[in-house]
Amino acid sequence: RRQSTVRDLRWNVKISGFAQKTHNPIRAIVDGLTIVPNPEKKMIALSIGDPTTFGNLLPANEILDAMKKVIDDKNFNGYAPSVGFIEAREAVAEYSAHQGVIKEISAKDVILCSGCSCALDLCIAAIANEGQNILIPKPGFSIYRTLAEGFGIECRSYNLIPEQGWEIDLDHLEELIDENTAAIIVTNPSNPCGSVFSKQHILDILEIAERHYVPIIADEIYEHFVFPGNEYFSMASLSKNVPILSCGGTTKRFLVPGWRLGWIIVHDRHGAFSEVRQGLLNLSARILGPNSLVQGALPAILKNTPQKFYDELVETLQNHANIAYSMLKEIPGLTPIMPQGAMYMMVLLDMKNFPEFHDELDFVQSLVAEQSVFCLPGKCFDIDDFIRIVLTVPKEMIIEACERIQEFCENHYRPPKIDEEIDDLATNFIKITDF
Amino acid sequence: RRQSTVRDLRWNVKISGFAQKTHNPIRAIVDGLTIVPNPEKKMIALSIGDPTTFGNLLPANEILDAMKKVIDDKNFNGYAPSVGFIEAREAVAEYSAHQGVIKEISAKDVILCSGCSCALDLCIAAIANEGQNILIPKPGFSIYRTLAEGFGIECRSYNLIPEQGWEIDLDHLEELIDENTAAIIVTNPSNPCGSVFSKQHILDILEIAERHYVPIIADEIYEHFVFPGNEYFSMASLSKNVPILSCGGTTKRFLVPGWRLGWIIVHDRHGAFSEVRQGLLNLSARILGPNSLVQGALPAILKNTPQKFYDELVETLQNHANIAYSMLKEIPGLTPIMPQGAMYMMVLLDMKNFPEFHDELDFVQSLVAEQSVFCLPGKCFDIDDFIRIVLTVPKEMIIEACERIQEFCENHYRPPKIDEEIDDLATNFIKITDF
Ligand SMILES: Cc1ncc(COP(=O)(O)O)c(C=O)c1O
Ligand SMILES: Cc1ncc(COP(=O)(O)O)c(C=O)c1O
Repeated sequence: RRQSTVRDLRWNVKISGFAQKTHNPIRAIVDGLTIVPNPEKKMIALSIGDPTTFGNLLPANEILDAMKKVIDDKNFNGYAPSVGFIEAREAVAEYSAHQGVIKEISAKDVILCSGCSCALDLCIAAIANEGQNILIPKPGFSIYRTLAEGFGIECRSYNLIPEQGWEIDLDHLEELIDENTAAIIVTNPSNPCGSVFSKQHILDILEIAERHYVPIIADEIYEHFVFPGNEYFSMASLSKNVPILSCGGTTKRFLVPGWRLGWIIVHDRHGAFSEVRQGLLNLSARILGPNSLVQGALPAILKNTPQKFYDELVETLQNHANIAYSMLKEIPGLTPIMPQGAMYMMVLLDMKNFPEFHDELDFVQSLVAEQSVFCLPGKCFDIDDFIRIVLTVPKEMIIEACERIQEFCENHYRPPKIDEEIDDLATNFIKITDF
Repeated sequence: RRQSTVRDLRWNVKISGFAQKTHNPIRAIVDGLTIVPNPEKKMIALSIGDPTTFGNLLPANEILDAMKKVIDDKNFNGYAPSVGFIEAREAVAEYSAHQGVIKEISAKDVILCSGCSCALDLCIAAIANEGQNILIPKPGFSIYRTLAEGFGIECRSYNLIPEQGWEIDLDHLEELIDENTAAIIVTNPSNPCGSVFSKQHILDILEIAERHYVPIIADEIYEHFVFPGNEYFSMASLSKNVPILSCGGTTKRFLVPGWRLGWIIVHDRHGAFSEVRQGLLNLSARILGPNSLVQGALPAILKNTPQKFYDELVETLQNHANIAYSMLKEIPGLTPIMPQGAMYMMVLLDMKNFPEFHDELDFVQSLVAEQSVFCLPGKCFDIDDFIRIVLTVPKEMIIEACERIQEFCENHYRPPKIDEEIDDLATNFIKITDF
C-alpha cells in the first residue's frame, strides 16, 4: 500500500480562504456584546429586522391562498429552470414595469433567486473580480461586505449625510471611483436609514455613474415602501444609458422573508450587460433558484395582493415612525432622524452627553442591562454614535421602549458645558431633524 | 466635473472570472446537439432527471398536508437562522441517525441548504482553495465541476469500472491524490450509474482516505434509494476516523426537487472539521438557507411519510429498471448495465457496430430525429459511448421508448467482422451485465 510522501501526514483540514473571508459583521459585533436584560423588565428587541417576529404583521391571505392552491395543484414540485419558471419571471417583469425607461422589461431580463441576498450574491459575483472594488453606502447593510469580501473584492464605503436626509455625499462617492471600480451599490429605500432618495438625487448619482462608466447594483428590496408624501423612483427608470442590476423580492413588502424569493432585473443599456447576463445565467446553475412552490404562486402573489394590504402596512410603519420620532426627539442627548420609508429609524447619540459610555456599543449594552431594550449599534452598519430602531414591532412595544429609553437617558445624561453648547449651536444639529 | 483619467472611457462591463468559469457542462453539450424529433412520433424524453415531470410519481399526501398546515399556522414566514431552524435540524439529525458511527449526530451537526446543490456548493467552497483539487467520479454528475471550477479548484476524475458494477478504480483514485487534494467526492447511490456500493467497497475507499488524510464529501442525495436485495451504507457509518461531509435532502426520495431543501451533515472526527464547520457557518450567511415553510414542515415530512410511500417508489423504479434492462439487453449493439438503485440506467453502445455514427452524440441525435426518443449522451457525465436512461418516466413510455430504440438499432446495426467478434469474446463484456 502506497504511503503518501507529499501530504502532511495527519488530519489537518483547512478552511478555504473564501469561507474564511466570508463573514457577517453584524454577527461578529453582536456576539461581542454583553446582552443581559434586566430580569425585572420584559425584553423588547428593537433589533430584529424581521417584520414577522411579533405576529402583528402578517402576509395577506391572498398570498397564503395562492401557496395552498399551488400545493393542491401538484404541478410545482419539480425543478424550475435555474433562472426560474417563465411564468414567474413574466409576472416579475410586469410587476416591475415601472422600472423600465419605456416599460421595456420582459421575462428574459428577470432572474429569480433564493432571496434578495442571493440576488446580490449573483450580481456581485458576476461583475467583480478579486482586486476590484465596489462602492457601498456608509451606513449600510452589511450583506454587501459579507458577499464581496470572500471573493477578495474590496468594499469602499461612501458617506451618507444624515443632515441631508442621508443623501449620498456625491463628492466622496466620486473620489472613490478608480479603474478597479466594478460597481456602485445603491440602497434605496435604505436599511438602516429609512431614507428615500429624491428624483434629483438619483439623477445626480446616475450622472456620476455615467460619466465614469460604472454600472449600478440597485438594492431595491424596500421598493414602494415609502411613506405617503414621498415618491419612490427606481434607479433604472431614470437612466437610458447606465446599465443597472436591480435586486428585489417578496421579502419585505409581502412580509415573507423566510420564503426566500428574490430577483434580479437586468437593465441592459446598449448591450453593455451582455457578458454579465451570461455570467448571471452561469451562476444561477449553482443552486437552481428559489423554491418552486413560491415560484408557482408568484404570479398570483404579485397580481392579487390588494393595494389595501400595501397601504395599511406602510401606514402602520409611518405611524410607528411618527410615534417613535416624537417621543425620542424630546429625550436629551438623542437626535432621531425621521425616515421616509422602509422599516427603520436611526437615532444619533450625542455621546459627549453620555460620558459614562465609551461608545455606542457601551450605551447599547447598558440600555439592555437596565431597561431590557435592545437596539443594534451603528457599528453593525459601519457608523459610530448611532443606534438603529426597528419600526415593525407592535405599537405598544415601541411606546414602552421609548419610555424606557427616556428613563435610561435621563439617568445617564450629563448636560454639556457652556462652550460645548455653543459648539452645538454652531453645527446647528437641531435643523437636521426637521427635513 | 471631474473626468476620470484612469478608467477606460466607454461602457465595457466585464464578466468576472468566477462567473465565466462557472458553467454547466450538460447545458453546453445539449445546446450543441441538434434535437429535432420525428414529427410523426411523440417525443419521449428519457433525459430528464426530474421524477415529477410526467405526473406519475407524486409526493405523499402527508408531505403536502404538512406544508399546508405550516402555511395555516403562519409561524414560518419569517427568517430562519442562516443554518436553519433548530427543530428542522433536529429532525434531520434524527432522520440521519443511521449515518453516525454510534448514532452521535445532533442538530449542531446539521446545516440546511437550498437543495443538495447548495449543500455541495458550501462544502466545496469551504474546503478547497484555488489551485487545490478535488477528486470526482467518472462518469459522474456534472454539478461538482460547475461548483468547483468557478473557484479555480481543479476537478480530477477517478474512473468507475462498469464491469465491476461501477465500483471505483481504487488504484486510479489513489494515484490522483497529491498534496493539493482537498477532498474526495463520492456519489453513492450514483447518478448516472444507479450503482450502490457494497460495504466492503466503501471500507476500501475509506481506507485510502484515511491513509492519505483526505476528507470525504459524500453526495448521498439518493440515500436509501436502493432496490430490494441491496443494502445501503452511508460513508460516515463505516468510519470512526475519516471526517465526512454528507450532503442530502428531500429532493429525490420525497419527490420534491423544486422545493430546494438540502442539508449537510458534518461528521467531524477528533475535531478535524472544526475550521470547516466555521467555514460552512460563514458561507450560510450568503443566502440565508432554504424556504422557511419547507423547514417548518420538515419534521413532519421526515416523520410522517409512510414507509409504504418509500417502498412503492423504489419498487416502481426497480420494475422500470427490470423492464428496460430485459428489453435493451436483447438489442444488438447495446449493453445495458443493471442498476441497484437511484433512478438511472447506463447503456453501453458498441460503437463499432454503429459505424454510421461518429460518437454517441451522433447516435443520440439520430435517435431523436428518427424515433423521437431523447437520452443524455455519456459525455454529459464525462464518459464516452454510453447513454443514460431515466427510469422515472411512466412504464408505458419506457416500453415504447425501448421498442423504438430497438427499431433504431436494428436499422443501424452492422455486424462485427469475425476477428472483432473474437476480440469481443476475449474482453468478455457479456459477463458484466450479470452482476
Ligand atoms: C437593504 C437590504 N438588502 C437586502 C436584504 C436581504 O433580503 P432577503 O431577505 O430577501 O435576502 C435586506 C434584508 O434585511 C436588506 O435590508
Ligand atoms: C448525484 C446528485 N447530486 C446532487 C443533485 C442535486 O440535488 P438538488 O436538486 O437537491 O440540488 C443531483 C440532482 O440530480 C444528483 O443527481
